[in-house]
Amino acid sequence: MTASELARWIRPVRRDVEKALKACVPPARVKPATIHRAMRYSLLAGGKRLRPLLCCAAAEACGGTVRQAMPAACAVELVHAYSLIHDDLPCMDDDDLRRGKPTSHRVFGEGIAVLAGDALLTEAFAVLARARPAARHTGADLVAVLAEASGSRGLIAGQVADLEAEGKKPSEPALYFVHAAKTGMLLRAALKLGGMCTGGSASRIATLDRFGFALGLAFQIQDDILDETQSVAKLGKTAGKDAAAGKMTFPALYGLPRSREMAARWTREAVHHLRPFGSKGDVLRALTERLLHRDH
Amino acid sequence: MTASELARWIRPVRRDVEKALKACVPPARVKPATIHRAMRYSLLAGGKRLRPLLCCAAAEACGGTVRQAMPAACAVELVHAYSLIHDDLPCMDDDDLRRGKPTSHRVFGEGIAVLAGDALLTEAFAVLARARPAARHTGADLVAVLAEASGSRGLIAGQVADLEAEGKKPSEPALYFVHAAKTGMLLRAALKLGGMCTGGSASRIATLDRFGFALGLAFQIQDDILDETQSVAKLGKTAGKDAAAGKMTFPALYGLPRSREMAARWTREAVHHLRPFGSKGDVLRALTERLLHRDH
Repeated sequence: MTASELARWIRPVRRDVEKALKACVPPARVKPATIHRAMRYSLLAGGKRLRPLLCCAAAEACGGTVRQAMPAACAVELVHAYSLIHDDLPCMDDDDLRRGKPTSHRVFGEGIAVLAGDALLTEAFAVLARARPAARHTGADLVAVLAEASGSRGLIAGQVADLEAEGKKPSEPALYFVHAAKTGMLLRAALKLGGMCTGGSASRIATLDRFGFALGLAFQIQDDILDETQSVAKLGKTAGKDAAAGKMTFPALYGLPRSREMAARWTREAVHHLRPFGSKGDVLRALTERLLHRDH
Repeated sequence: MTASELARWIRPVRRDVEKALKACVPPARVKPATIHRAMRYSLLAGGKRLRPLLCCAAAEACGGTVRQAMPAACAVELVHAYSLIHDDLPCMDDDDLRRGKPTSHRVFGEGIAVLAGDALLTEAFAVLARARPAARHTGADLVAVLAEASGSRGLIAGQVADLEAEGKKPSEPALYFVHAAKTGMLLRAALKLGGMCTGGSASRIATLDRFGFALGLAFQIQDDILDETQSVAKLGKTAGKDAAAGKMTFPALYGLPRSREMAARWTREAVHHLRPFGSKGDVLRALTERLLHRDH
């Protein structure tokens, strides 16, 4: 699949995702207006929508449609948006800029930012509960997968380990743990949920999970590299911040050239896992390659 | 039902709830240990377990068992525990004391307190997704009810309105909105989920909902009264704090004697709704009366 074929696949899917996300959160006029304004501010701030795209591509790889995967795609993005708001709080990473705009707590204050995150997380489960997966899996199964990926042994475990690692000497196991939990768990959930929504078999779901693990590492290594090498304008968030905070990153531990090699290796590993999908895995394959070569 | 008969009903149920709650959160030795310690610190800090008791009593009122309602009972208490941690944060109510112990952020720091709340909320949905309701309702239906009650038009709406009302002139509609959302929504969810877990009919669930609305107001008015009249030692949290912060409360708007009358009136209203349950509603009735006469 060429870059322009991929772009042609992405465009309508991303448009549908934006539309569906808009419908996930009450309009700003619904009382209390502040919270709905804050939720929409963060959720509809643009972004790559990587997780929804992966979710929809996984659905197609399992023989289903984008439409079937849409509630799950939205749920995963809702969780992602919540996690960014809370990560940016002064008591966490204390960031002022996200997706090129002031962070939630800079605009709405810390109290509302905490609550907006809470509300987006809650809404994720509400949206997922309304999904009607095709066969084999129930709505409750979807909820269980998302909750596991987002919980204290998933996304949150990564954030805790990240907080606790600050200023400590980086170690390889700790670095992999943080990155696998903080980025990988939600990417894997996006893929698995996409497959589950369309009645994918247990073996297909397991394959998507293994693919997601490798993809998550490739993605996070590339993210670390971009954080060191790109400008604020490109990234839309404070650059060089991780290094300044003494955070564990791949470049900090291995240097840039070796980090680049590792990103390429995990990308190959990810693509390798897609073999059982044949040509149905073309979009996932192209998305994976594109992530390695992105510049923001 | 006499007070001692009610006490005999409560004792084993509360013991089962404590046991089930302990099993909801990984042991403190599971990595990252900090988050699991913080989750257990707040979740297992005692408390009345009112919401789980109501959930279990509602299950029995609909002809089911406490055992059937246990996942839902735990889920509701997990949401309650999360909301207390976030409400106590410096950027919200800034409280130092909860259930007689230092609040989560005083012990673990703000970052971990935010994450512990997030993790308890997430776990609530994980637990509920594992429930297998008897008939009529699916696990996804349960998740939808809990998410709605906890979301930006439920629990969180109440907290936002509460934050925004501070220092403003109290008004009756604003006061009812805050209290109905902040306390009422989760009590109603506890009752409805209890009924749903045991296959209660739509009309039974609707009756539990109306009962819960009245009970929520009775409970919150009584809570406001106790906050004004009781000592820190009795309450286990900072007393007189609401009045000092210029918060809207029933005593602030109506004075103590009229607030007492209103609590009694909403209690009668709540009990009235239980008539269709006949003697199966005895425990709910006795719990309601007991809440009016509690001193902490």
